[in-house]
Amino acid sequence: MVNQVQRGDGTLSSRSDSSAASASGGDSSKESSRCSTPVLDADRTDRLRYKMRRRMESGDHWFSLEFFPPRTASGAVNLISRFDRMGSGGPLFIDITWHPSGDPGSDKETSSMMIASTAVNYCGLESVLHLTCCNQSKDNISRHLSKAKHLGLKNIMALRGDPVGSDWEEEEEGFNYAVDLVKHIRSEFDDYFDICVAGYPTGHPEAHSYKEDLIYLKEKVAAGADFVITQLFFRAETFLKFEEDCRPSGSPCVCVQGYQSLRQLVKLSKLEVPEEITRVIEPIKDNDAAIRNYGIHQALEMCRVLLDSGRVPGLHFYTLNREVATMEVLRQLGMWQEDPRRPMPWAVSAHPKRKVEDVRPIFWGSRPKSYIYRTQDWDEFPNGRWGNSSSPAFGELNDYYLFYLKSKSSKDALLVFEVFTCYIAAQPNRKGHKVMCLPWNDEPLAPETNMLKDELEKVNTRGVLTINSQPNINGKPSTDPIVGWGPPGGYVFQKAYLEFFTSSENVNALLKVLKKYEPRVNYHIVNVHGRNLTNAPDMQPNAVTWGIFPGREIVQPTVVDPVSFMFWKDEAFALWIEQWAKLYEDESPSRMIIKYIHDNYFLVNLVDNDFPLDSCLWQVIEDMFELLQTGQVANDSSLELDS
Amino acid sequence: MVNQVQRGDGTLSSRSDSSAASASGGDSSKESSRCSTPVLDADRTDRLRYKMRRRMESGDHWFSLEFFPPRTASGAVNLISRFDRMGSGGPLFIDITWHPSGDPGSDKETSSMMIASTAVNYCGLESVLHLTCCNQSKDNISRHLSKAKHLGLKNIMALRGDPVGSDWEEEEEGFNYAVDLVKHIRSEFDDYFDICVAGYPTGHPEAHSYKEDLIYLKEKVAAGADFVITQLFFRAETFLKFEEDCRPSGSPCVCVQGYQSLRQLVKLSKLEVPEEITRVIEPIKDNDAAIRNYGIHQALEMCRVLLDSGRVPGLHFYTLNREVATMEVLRQLGMWQEDPRRPMPWAVSAHPKRKVEDVRPIFWGSRPKSYIYRTQDWDEFPNGRWGNSSSPAFGELNDYYLFYLKSKSSKDALLVFEVFTCYIAAQPNRKGHKVMCLPWNDEPLAPETNMLKDELEKVNTRGVLTINSQPNINGKPSTDPIVGWGPPGGYVFQKAYLEFFTSSENVNALLKVLKKYEPRVNYHIVNVHGRNLTNAPDMQPNAVTWGIFPGREIVQPTVVDPVSFMFWKDEAFALWIEQWAKLYEDESPSRMIIKYIHDNYFLVNLVDNDFPLDSCLWQVIEDMFELLQTGQVANDSSLELDS
Repeated sequence: MVNQVQRGDGTLSSRSDSSAASASGGDSSKESSRCSTPVLDADRTDRLRYKMRRRMESGDHWFSLEFFPPRTASGAVNLISRFDRMGSGGPLFIDITWHPSGDPGSDKETSSMMIASTAVNYCGLESVLHLTCCNQSKDNISRHLSKAKHLGLKNIMALRGDPVGSDWEEEEEGFNYAVDLVKHIRSEFDDYFDICVAGYPTGHPEAHSYKEDLIYLKEKVAAGADFVITQLFFRAETFLKFEEDCRPSGSPCVCVQGYQSLRQLVKLSKLEVPEEITRVIEPIKDNDAAIRNYGIHQALEMCRVLLDSGRVPGLHFYTLNREVATMEVLRQLGMWQEDPRRPMPWAVSAHPKRKVEDVRPIFWGSRPKSYIYRTQDWDEFPNGRWGNSSSPAFGELNDYYLFYLKSKSSKDALLVFEVFTCYIAAQPNRKGHKVMCLPWNDEPLAPETNMLKDELEKVNTRGVLTINSQPNINGKPSTDPIVGWGPPGGYVFQKAYLEFFTSSENVNALLKVLKKYEPRVNYHIVNVHGRNLTNAPDMQPNAVTWGIFPGREIVQPTVVDPVSFMFWKDEAFALWIEQWAKLYEDESPSRMIIKYIHDNYFLVNLVDNDFPLDSCLWQVIEDMFELLQTGQVANDSSLELDS
Repeated sequence: MVNQVQRGDGTLSSRSDSSAASASGGDSSKESSRCSTPVLDADRTDRLRYKMRRRMESGDHWFSLEFFPPRTASGAVNLISRFDRMGSGGPLFIDITWHPSGDPGSDKETSSMMIASTAVNYCGLESVLHLTCCNQSKDNISRHLSKAKHLGLKNIMALRGDPVGSDWEEEEEGFNYAVDLVKHIRSEFDDYFDICVAGYPTGHPEAHSYKEDLIYLKEKVAAGADFVITQLFFRAETFLKFEEDCRPSGSPCVCVQGYQSLRQLVKLSKLEVPEEITRVIEPIKDNDAAIRNYGIHQALEMCRVLLDSGRVPGLHFYTLNREVATMEVLRQLGMWQEDPRRPMPWAVSAHPKRKVEDVRPIFWGSRPKSYIYRTQDWDEFPNGRWGNSSSPAFGELNDYYLFYLKSKSSKDALLVFEVFTCYIAAQPNRKGHKVMCLPWNDEPLAPETNMLKDELEKVNTRGVLTINSQPNINGKPSTDPIVGWGPPGGYVFQKAYLEFFTSSENVNALLKVLKKYEPRVNYHIVNVHGRNLTNAPDMQPNAVTWGIFPGREIVQPTVVDPVSFMFWKDEAFALWIEQWAKLYEDESPSRMIIKYIHDNYFLVNLVDNDFPLDSCLWQVIEDMFELLQTGQVANDSSLELDS
């Protein structure tokens, strides 16, 4: 099974072996390329060509996935969810086709450029952006490449593209072939990009001969291409012959072959479907399930032959933006990561600027894309400790709202709101689990949060409206399927965390209760106006997730940072209005209730510092309710809040 | 009882209370003075005047200790040991008198300047340097002050000093009174120094009147003095009257009173001893014990009256470089820290440049003064993580050798060498515990190392010559008397560590054995020529001591850093020659043996990354010996070393 972290570590240990075998001089320390960061996963930071090389050297087959940009904004949202799902299977990279008629280099959420950027920055996927060059000016191409670089894209698939219309002619100064584009990239951007080019195992449809086509490929590689992805094919021997014919070129090319049996693709690629396939398909062409099963069967057979040949380092899948068939093939090949190891407890971005990032505030834990969006302009990312970062400047959320959130259905919100209505109306039998799908979470409930489900349900029904939480963890193995992250052989830890909205009456009682829990419990309590009550020492961040790994410094990926909390507060309160209230008519009771909560409730976070003991946070809440029942809070502690 | 760490925390929590009580706006986060480091101990970084203020506000009495510079280099070594011992009792500060006839501003190891610098930099003591100004040029004074600043001294006791000879006259442009010096410091160095001045409860011996003297004191405070230390006195009421008389001046002065009943001091201070005291002393003047007991009794009585008055924030002791009587008085007053809490697992330097330092390589663990010496020119100190520091440049040890090590007796070394002789001669009954006092340790054996004593003895008798080790610790309270450090409420952790010299034959076997312990055990193996064998991933540092505290980021004060290890290696091997071999005649058997070890042995360090489990390092050594006994190492693995 392919596993990112294991790969990384495999490399490290093989490197170590070689350094152990070779004698180094006393001043070897000066020559060593000393890491300034505890890179837990070499694959996270290395460029694609080196990842490939490592995988080839270790004989660890990879797979990659090709997607095309969607037509609509809601299609984009769906595709991004698909990236998250398919990314968890462990592709070495994905690639996004260039859609010349769809304004591919624009800022539209459906453009090739933006989809690739989203895959890199928000989904953390190593991504290759296709780029076609025919009918394009050099300036235009350079603009696209500059933009791609700026967005954090590192890999380009250099293609000629299909000429528009039939009257295409070579231009004197223009880009006529993919090789021109490869040369241009290398001359303008030096070694910044990893460049992939296309190989045609049956020859390019427009080439005069298979042999001539091999010469073109050789030229592309000579011009600076790092690896080759082949056009799809239907017979393993097609590829194996091609691979053999490429070899004498002595080029440093890595051949990756592609496969996905779909009629649409055949049309696009102008390929002929072999007779043995059409013979089978013809009788079942109206039976979708049969067609798909046959396709999966065919693909599996061919992939096995290819992998068994020992001449195929990886498989490239033309997914056509569908996931079922590809995942099924990969599962049956044993290449799909069933249990993806997490390099960090949060999803890592693949932007090169963020490669050292290893600390984030916990607040955006369920809204990681919002966090990435709001910090995209940072020049430096916290590394090792949050306190070392410069004072954080969080961007505004306007565009992000428009792009990612506008297509969220109102139905979800209504369900959540019903729970609150039930709570406010004191209807007892309402199950709290609907509170799980709050607008403060843009990802499905984390498995570890399930560990707290019963307790969360209980407090939510009583007006402690939780939006973020984690259990305490006292040294579980880093390979733990639920709470593990980072390389194997390590131990992960957490302090219990609870974040919720609640009324000022509850906060009054809570503040009294919290005095009993000093210094065990740290708290931050803030309302929409910024009233801020805390016992954080010197406004320092509190590490709430950390890991200890063999041969590394401590990694502490999640902190409760008092300063960031004030920025999160603005976002968290805004969601009441932006995500909920706007679903209802002005002056409607629903809207008034939400507005009331927004204006009067407090956002509270609690950390139990005694991570080796059972969390006391539930007891804190319990004590708060008890105090409220005795009625001893009323006047004097409202003083505390109003002073 | 006075406790540095508790103080720090007390302050933090009182600050938090005030922030909790006051409402702050939404943009308060921008105003907050955000710490860039997880300062565990406010007292460690704050200036003396603020430490005093906090102690006064909390009603927590302090004590301070006065020393004079020694006459000889060996006297300096003794005094530095005394600093370490008396520093552990928790003085708020110590002060070093200015010795005009002893070249006080020079680089001699006995100068006032160097003794104060050593107290600050090597012993981590908040220190006040006395400075007298009469008969001195402005340039000279400025030079002294610049040098003090450069050395990390932050506090000056500004004194006039005793004029040399009886023909002293006021100089027009010169420094005639302490107030001139105070003004000069403030005008030349702004607010950099905390300035202390002297108060004379019975009037200055040369002043015309007690009243005139009070006016002078007021002038000194008005000129910028931060606090006042009084001359010694024999009656509590003397001080209490003085303190009352000072008050109407409305000055921000903090009065500290001093006490130590010794005849010599009386002579120096030109004070008259009250009759009630001479009356008691006269009959017992030849009985030293009786005199001392009476002195302690007298001091205790007076200190109690002063402290009970509520008008004395701290007691200043004129120690005359002796420790017994002062420690006895402080113990009986309950002001001596019996169980000093460690802010870090290693002794923290008090140099302001090092205030953020919170990571060090483990190698110098038993030679902290050497580490401080060799890194004194660093502009930045690692903070949070070692990997963030710039590539380390370690200074040479030459001067350090001369200063600190030359007075080490050869007797100790001989004892240690006997152990090695016994090992080499295979004399079985020799107890290994003598190996505890190796030249690689310049401090007494740490209590936690005692936990490993039996195992250490065992392996040392078999040629695994250990020089540094620590047990694994899996989350002990930070208040643990043996392994605890940092503020209360935290948990401390360690990975097991073992460092030793051993023969190349042993190393051959060890390398075979270590393969079974991948990746659990990290190792670095190096000989004097720099042959370096390691399995450290990417030459990254390995955190081996860390602590988790309420409301803080993770602190990892000790790392095994591959790069620093190469510098430590040079020092560790040099000690064989510099500290041992040189004790013997050239060509003597002893010297030849040491030379052989120096030239042929390897320095090995091992880290067991699985800190929650029992350390496997002893088993590694055991496996090595077993492998050696089976004789399967000989040829093939010597290949491994020689390749």
